[in-house]
Amino acid sequence: MTSHLMRPAERAQLAMMLEVCAFPKPGNVDRCHDFPDTRLEHFLASTILARPALEEAEQGNGRIGEIFGHAIRQTNVHNGGNTHFGAFLLLIPIVYGGDIEGAKRAVAATGVSDAVAFYKAFALTSVRANTSDELDVNDPKALDVIREREMTMLDVMEHSAANDMVAREWINGFALTRRGADLLHQIGPGRNAIVEMFLTLLATEPDTFIIKKFGPDTARETMTKAREVLDGRRVPETFDAECIAAGINPGSIADITIAAIYVALLEGWEWDS
Amino acid sequence: MTSHLMRPAERAQLAMMLEVCAFPKPGNVDRCHDFPDTRLEHFLASTILARPALEEAEQGNGRIGEIFGHAIRQTNVHNGGNTHFGAFLLLIPIVYGGDIEGAKRAVAATGVSDAVAFYKAFALTSVRANTSDELDVNDPKALDVIREREMTMLDVMEHSAANDMVAREWINGFALTRRGADLLHQIGPGRNAIVEMFLTLLATEPDTFIIKKFGPDTARETMTKAREVLDGRRVPETFDAECIAAGINPGSIADITIAAIYVALLEGWEWDS
Repeated sequence: MTSHLMRPAERAQLAMMLEVCAFPKPGNVDRCHDFPDTRLEHFLASTILARPALEEAEQGNGRIGEIFGHAIRQTNVHNGGNTHFGAFLLLIPIVYGGDIEGAKRAVAATGVSDAVAFYKAFALTSVRANTSDELDVNDPKALDVIREREMTMLDVMEHSAANDMVAREWINGFALTRRGADLLHQIGPGRNAIVEMFLTLLATEPDTFIIKKFGPDTARETMTKAREVLDGRRVPETFDAECIAAGINPGSIADITIAAIYVALLEGWEWDS
Repeated sequence: MTSHLMRPAERAQLAMMLEVCAFPKPGNVDRCHDFPDTRLEHFLASTILARPALEEAEQGNGRIGEIFGHAIRQTNVHNGGNTHFGAFLLLIPIVYGGDIEGAKRAVAATGVSDAVAFYKAFALTSVRANTSDELDVNDPKALDVIREREMTMLDVMEHSAANDMVAREWINGFALTRRGADLLHQIGPGRNAIVEMFLTLLATEPDTFIIKKFGPDTARETMTKAREVLDGRRVPETFDAECIAAGINPGSIADITIAAIYVALLEGWEWDS
């Protein structure tokens, strides 16, 4: 499939679809696993429903913070809760800018109004955040702090970067997104490459979503187990079952995986050969 | 999820997504089963890629045959082959007309140009058809016959109705689509209703796709087994495995299932409660 010829909004939707279908993806929703309240169908419904926001990004109309807010609102209509908060934080600048270089320019150009729109979107979700923080998204005063300090959306991401690997992508030039796309090119075409890329990122990067939920020890242990799967010393299905039983879901690496699939497709990586 | 408030193109995509994800759906592609050349991801890619054609239908712009051709072309770009030929044949008139009553008016208003566009789209696919027929889609002369006899797209469906239950929907007022939607309302909300509805149609209607592929005896046998699953006398997973091993895929009832989900969603049936 000539994915590099398709329109950007479609490519973004395809990346979201391919990520959630890839199997076995330890700990996350995939073809054979649902969470009790968030199921495969919720991820795929969000994939369909985000189309207008992704088209706005594709056309480069409007501001990134606002488009992000539209994506959150458009996908916030089912009972599955948040599905793609972190993924949109990466996909929207990349679709808006055209590629990673364009995304860097786009995030550098964000302003206070983007930060405000981002916080308003955040408040609609139950996304895990740091609570001992004057920029706590659950605190209405956070918006005042942002306005007083004239923080841009990039400043907000910088503030979150230490604890959040998705926010970190905004300030490190989308380094892990780039790495994920490079891995897909190296591994080769076809859906199994997505699982291998995901496991490679999981083996080498502590997932900050897991750290927030369980602490650094669990994140480290998850890295070791992912490495063992890659080395053939651990059965992937067993690792998957263990993660699910313990509620360990590497959600941030899943977000980065989506952005990496998008970039790889753009560069000609073939998903269905 | 307030599916009756979403826009028609999105609702059609949601119906396509919910149908292919529903599990276990004997013999067809679902969450846990792929065909060798057509996989879950191909069905979902088609679901994403058909958006522009579905939006054309939603706006009622253009003619049904042409919009159908656009849907086939838009989804004919991956390596998975035909995924939704029959589904589009039902969805496009229903989206175009707004509901089943509108679809009846829409198919009655088709002309020779719709029939020609339909045949041209058909020629792009490898959809199973009757070959001992002067209207054989693989025969370029079929287009001359259509033009000479001034056959409308409805006339073409009438010609196919004896052997094709999807074509039959055009001339019987979308009777099985209506029945499938009624079944969903009766069974109640949630994705398991889709499997039960599918099995109920399978138990009561010979799938014409199976008849074309294997003959009427196999279709009858499949009906009996579906009835046994509904009665609790046969394990659904076993029936599914048997169908897959034998290559028995009730593709036409799957097409009608998609149209029925669309109509049920329109009427307020809740997929994710």
